[in-house]
Amino acid sequence: MNAHERHLAADNIGLVTPKRFHCDTPLKLTSGRELPSFELVYETYGVLNNKGSNAVLICHALSGSHHAAGFHAPEDKKAGWWDGFIGPGKVIDTNKFFVVCPNNIGSCYGSTGPTSLKPQPPITEADDTDAKAKVKTKEWGADFPLITIKDWVASQKRLMDHLGINQWAAVVGGSMGGMQAMQWAIDYPEQLRHAAVIAAAPKLSAQNIAFNEVARQAIITDPEFFAGQYKDHDSAPKRGLSLARMLAHITYLSDEAMREKFGRDLRNEKIHFGYDVEFQVESYLRYQGQMFSQSFDANTYLILTKCLDYFDPASEYGDDLAKAFERSQCRFFVASFTTDWRFSPARSREIVDALMKVHKPVSYLEVQARQGHDSFLLNVPRYKKAFEGFMNMVDIL
Amino acid sequence: MNAHERHLAADNIGLVTPKRFHCDTPLKLTSGRELPSFELVYETYGVLNNKGSNAVLICHALSGSHHAAGFHAPEDKKAGWWDGFIGPGKVIDTNKFFVVCPNNIGSCYGSTGPTSLKPQPPITEADDTDAKAKVKTKEWGADFPLITIKDWVASQKRLMDHLGINQWAAVVGGSMGGMQAMQWAIDYPEQLRHAAVIAAAPKLSAQNIAFNEVARQAIITDPEFFAGQYKDHDSAPKRGLSLARMLAHITYLSDEAMREKFGRDLRNEKIHFGYDVEFQVESYLRYQGQMFSQSFDANTYLILTKCLDYFDPASEYGDDLAKAFERSQCRFFVASFTTDWRFSPARSREIVDALMKVHKPVSYLEVQARQGHDSFLLNVPRYKKAFEGFMNMVDIL
Repeated sequence: MNAHERHLAADNIGLVTPKRFHCDTPLKLTSGRELPSFELVYETYGVLNNKGSNAVLICHALSGSHHAAGFHAPEDKKAGWWDGFIGPGKVIDTNKFFVVCPNNIGSCYGSTGPTSLKPQPPITEADDTDAKAKVKTKEWGADFPLITIKDWVASQKRLMDHLGINQWAAVVGGSMGGMQAMQWAIDYPEQLRHAAVIAAAPKLSAQNIAFNEVARQAIITDPEFFAGQYKDHDSAPKRGLSLARMLAHITYLSDEAMREKFGRDLRNEKIHFGYDVEFQVESYLRYQGQMFSQSFDANTYLILTKCLDYFDPASEYGDDLAKAFERSQCRFFVASFTTDWRFSPARSREIVDALMKVHKPVSYLEVQARQGHDSFLLNVPRYKKAFEGFMNMVDIL
Repeated sequence: MNAHERHLAADNIGLVTPKRFHCDTPLKLTSGRELPSFELVYETYGVLNNKGSNAVLICHALSGSHHAAGFHAPEDKKAGWWDGFIGPGKVIDTNKFFVVCPNNIGSCYGSTGPTSLKPQPPITEADDTDAKAKVKTKEWGADFPLITIKDWVASQKRLMDHLGINQWAAVVGGSMGGMQAMQWAIDYPEQLRHAAVIAAAPKLSAQNIAFNEVARQAIITDPEFFAGQYKDHDSAPKRGLSLARMLAHITYLSDEAMREKFGRDLRNEKIHFGYDVEFQVESYLRYQGQMFSQSFDANTYLILTKCLDYFDPASEYGDDLAKAFERSQCRFFVASFTTDWRFSPARSREIVDALMKVHKPVSYLEVQARQGHDSFLLNVPRYKKAFEGFMNMVDIL
């Protein structure tokens, strides 16, 4: 099926237009700082029922966006990032559910973040004309506050209220999205009936933090970073961002997946003893890095990796994850993938063990899959089937 | 025991002075290029017996050197990199063996490499004085040829001949050192009686190459790299080299070792929501990167990672590793470490399987160890005991 056919297929939600939610009530952040106002860009698929009881929140991962399914324009070649899972008759069935996917604050895809304009202090009558002329609208850039997953969930709660949804039928996410689903169950226990936590972890390991730190140092030490104010210099730390992405890509794929995808295949027939691309895997990584560095914002990448590092919901509960889940009232679906070495099955089992300790209903599936961490985005039949089973079980009251 | 006491301890070889071997016979390299002459700096411990039959070759790993044991000066705080294994009564017993450890070509620790002076074409009588004045002795820098482990072994063979050794009692190495031991068994089957291949792999995986490629890109895209001629600009790509080292360090340690060493411990008591060091692991990595970038040469790092990528002895034998070992005549000791994810036990088993297929004598030990790839350098009792058992078995004829 080509892109055009896909776009018109019966199980595809077709064309979608992103919506905007502007919130004027200040958002107090975990760091102690405050966003005086913020905007969330989001997409919805399906129809909210009269009771407002069929809403599913999709939480995106690190470099994800609100564009989870469908197409923005007829000529689009690529559908949303979870299009294989969201649509009529799919795992998250838009005939049954009203699906909401917001872009998170701090991102660079439209919600308030480092690339948004920074609110300026109001100009008073007393200001002279010179001062008025000097006030230039400017992006937040490096001044944008560091955020936490708790902050994200709080901002998503505002969107929920705005949409007239009293309780999510389910909150769903993979990787960093799964962390948001957990945080929802902990912070707003009465406001969701189901939570799907896929390929996630209850907190980052030292090794996870180490990889994030190398990525950050690549960006921060790039001479074109200019302490995060690179826009003022008509510049961008593209080299650093590209390195960060190359590195992240290694952690998204399993060793097996890399072997199957590239092995030690040479791009040309033989070794030429130089630093141009020799192995296919080098070519792949350089391309991924370059593409990403041209479209993503470096300050955003720093904020998002820090947001990951800080995630540790147990820390508010005496470092006892079970205690953190004690008040949660939803049913859980937890899934992990055997070759995921970024957030290995052992990390998912920590979540399951904590839930069982406080007698919460949880289904756990460890899926045999070769694709590593990325599996949660892919068509892995056993995973899809189990996930579908869980979503079928979701009552819409 | 403090450094001074260690230095004087009965099982320490004490003060050592590096030696130099100059070879004027050109060395033809795998790449097709040629080194017109080369020097190896090396250390020896113990005494060569009359028959020249008790010599053990130690092959160093990526960033290693010829300084494997003992101290260069009484005030030295740190002994050689394998001092725990080499000395009187130790695993590689200098009362029994004459131990030779050369620094490999391409390195920056004294053997011919990018930081060595490049031979200049001779100035003929016809040259005018201006031209003579212009000829400046210059380092090889980026002009230094890319090398292979096969080239290293060929250069070590020259040193062997120079020292009057007909056959190594054993060739021993960990990681990239283990690759050299394998190459010896393949290229000079009659010239060694034992080979110890520790924490190695028969070739790099796509993931291994991917990590090397990110490291190289960090160096090459550093604006101070100047296409490798950074010395001409009184500069050095320290940022890139530091990133490369940080990244490599993650792959040397196991997730477990990182957890035990750092966990998610904060350097200060609480999160301060900024990009300065927050977690201990960040502090450790930055320090490792900075130290390395001040003492190591970037062109060398590029050459060494490429040398790793190229290693694939089976490729000369129809991609059949067993066939590569067919002519080898030595006994093998192969060891791996359970938490080594850089060169996992599965990679060592590939070596063992190939050896068994062609009926070569091999002892294999998979050691339970928490420290990851670095284990081969550390005091892991079961590994040390088994390694000692193998070395005790080595006959000196």
